[in-house]
Amino acid sequence: MQQLENHACFGGQQQVWQHPSTSLLCDMRFGVYLPPQALAGQRCPVLYWLSGLTCTEQNFITKAGAQHSAAQHGFILVAPDTSPRGTEVADDAAYDLGQGAGFYLNATQAPWAAHYRMEDYVVQELPALIEAHFPASTHRAISGHSMGGHGALTLALKYPGRYASVSAFSPIVAPSQVPWGEKAFTAYLGTDRSAWQAHDAVALVAQERPERLPLLIDQGLADDFLAAQLRPELLEAACQAAGHPLTLRRHAGYDHSYYFIASLIGDHLAHHAQALGA
Amino acid sequence: MQQLENHACFGGQQQVWQHPSTSLLCDMRFGVYLPPQALAGQRCPVLYWLSGLTCTEQNFITKAGAQHSAAQHGFILVAPDTSPRGTEVADDAAYDLGQGAGFYLNATQAPWAAHYRMEDYVVQELPALIEAHFPASTHRAISGHSMGGHGALTLALKYPGRYASVSAFSPIVAPSQVPWGEKAFTAYLGTDRSAWQAHDAVALVAQERPERLPLLIDQGLADDFLAAQLRPELLEAACQAAGHPLTLRRHAGYDHSYYFIASLIGDHLAHHAQALGA
Repeated sequence: MQQLENHACFGGQQQVWQHPSTSLLCDMRFGVYLPPQALAGQRCPVLYWLSGLTCTEQNFITKAGAQHSAAQHGFILVAPDTSPRGTEVADDAAYDLGQGAGFYLNATQAPWAAHYRMEDYVVQELPALIEAHFPASTHRAISGHSMGGHGALTLALKYPGRYASVSAFSPIVAPSQVPWGEKAFTAYLGTDRSAWQAHDAVALVAQERPERLPLLIDQGLADDFLAAQLRPELLEAACQAAGHPLTLRRHAGYDHSYYFIASLIGDHLAHHAQALGA
Repeated sequence: MQQLENHACFGGQQQVWQHPSTSLLCDMRFGVYLPPQALAGQRCPVLYWLSGLTCTEQNFITKAGAQHSAAQHGFILVAPDTSPRGTEVADDAAYDLGQGAGFYLNATQAPWAAHYRMEDYVVQELPALIEAHFPASTHRAISGHSMGGHGALTLALKYPGRYASVSAFSPIVAPSQVPWGEKAFTAYLGTDRSAWQAHDAVALVAQERPERLPLLIDQGLADDFLAAQLRPELLEAACQAAGHPLTLRRHAGYDHSYYFIASLIGDHLAHHAQALGA
């Protein structure tokens, strides 16, 4: 594992690391923010942040301003890249498929199946690595934006007990029913839509579940992708039908950008801190 | 004047505008953050932020997280570009001369003199435009980073009464004595070093002055440019000799990046708010 960046930030350190991933069979980068409490030797809970389409590990760490709240609450922040990367990794010219668009699942279809195993990477490999190399406790929270909000919701629902807390900004809640998701799932998972259900928050909420982890979602009402791609009302209806606890906050005037995330990331960190007793 | 961006942010709006500049004879972009107080119709004080080498109007508005504090204090934030721009504007292949490196002065030498009048732009044209088009009071503060810290210090010192408050992160305090400044000043102002003194904070502080505006400076000690380009000890000595009030804070571990700025921008906004009674 190789350290690429290290910047003092709010009394802690914002680092970027690169490592050969055994799940993705390529080199991967991730950002990790170590709050002052971690530098002082305390084991800290970890918030995993999953970014949206076209992002790398850089977007969240440079634009969200999350380090401020993480330093207050003593959270480690981990921000992985959004897909496998490299010249040997399958890609597509479109921004919403291939590199930068991994959708946080394990692909089953050629040519994607060889490298696109972001679900294994985010749920298994990365936490094992973080918990071995940094002063991280095994208390985990997960959040994300857009495609990453989809990732956070589906992984938290799919792996009960793995995350103490989950939230999302402007998530794709029903990928099986919207163009971004239909395109990606057809490519990565094939045309049999029954295989898509395990990666669709609306479908997962509708299942019988061993636990009902509360969902916190913030959505801007001036978001250009709201009506066609995000459709939070579908998750709202599914949660209502299943009795799944959901806090869905709609914000007039806010769009899909990091300006929205920055405005509310402090709220999300406070929510996760309360859930984790941090 | 044309609006290019408008994002809700911390209850206010982060906008980007483009306008034909009469000082620079080219189209210019600037970021303006309108806090909730401004949207509610209140006239708000304005903090001008001057960015460093290679930056545009985007760096500060996307990375500093300053909107959070600006919303609390009711500050309008204005972030201009760092030089004139365009194919008709003289340029140099180096990152530290020409476009992206205007050094906040009026050039007197060919080929730069035709467009490089950032001093006029920042001190005269831009405030007039801001105060005409936005709910801005005439209470002005100025701050900046690196080359922009140089700009903030020299313009505040050179125009007494124009700015109620000044601060800087990692500024070039003595451009006449360091490689970045010597290169730029030779190109823009010529080889007669006496013409450089009006654009050098250390030289300006040494002059008899009608007022002694207190300077607030934060400097990281892990900054790669500290010893060769920034040299805050030169300003410290000049202020001591002249009896000029200076608060110079040195921060172990912090580098030249926006992670440093983000960590302390809240402090600077509070400092400016106190000076302006905001």
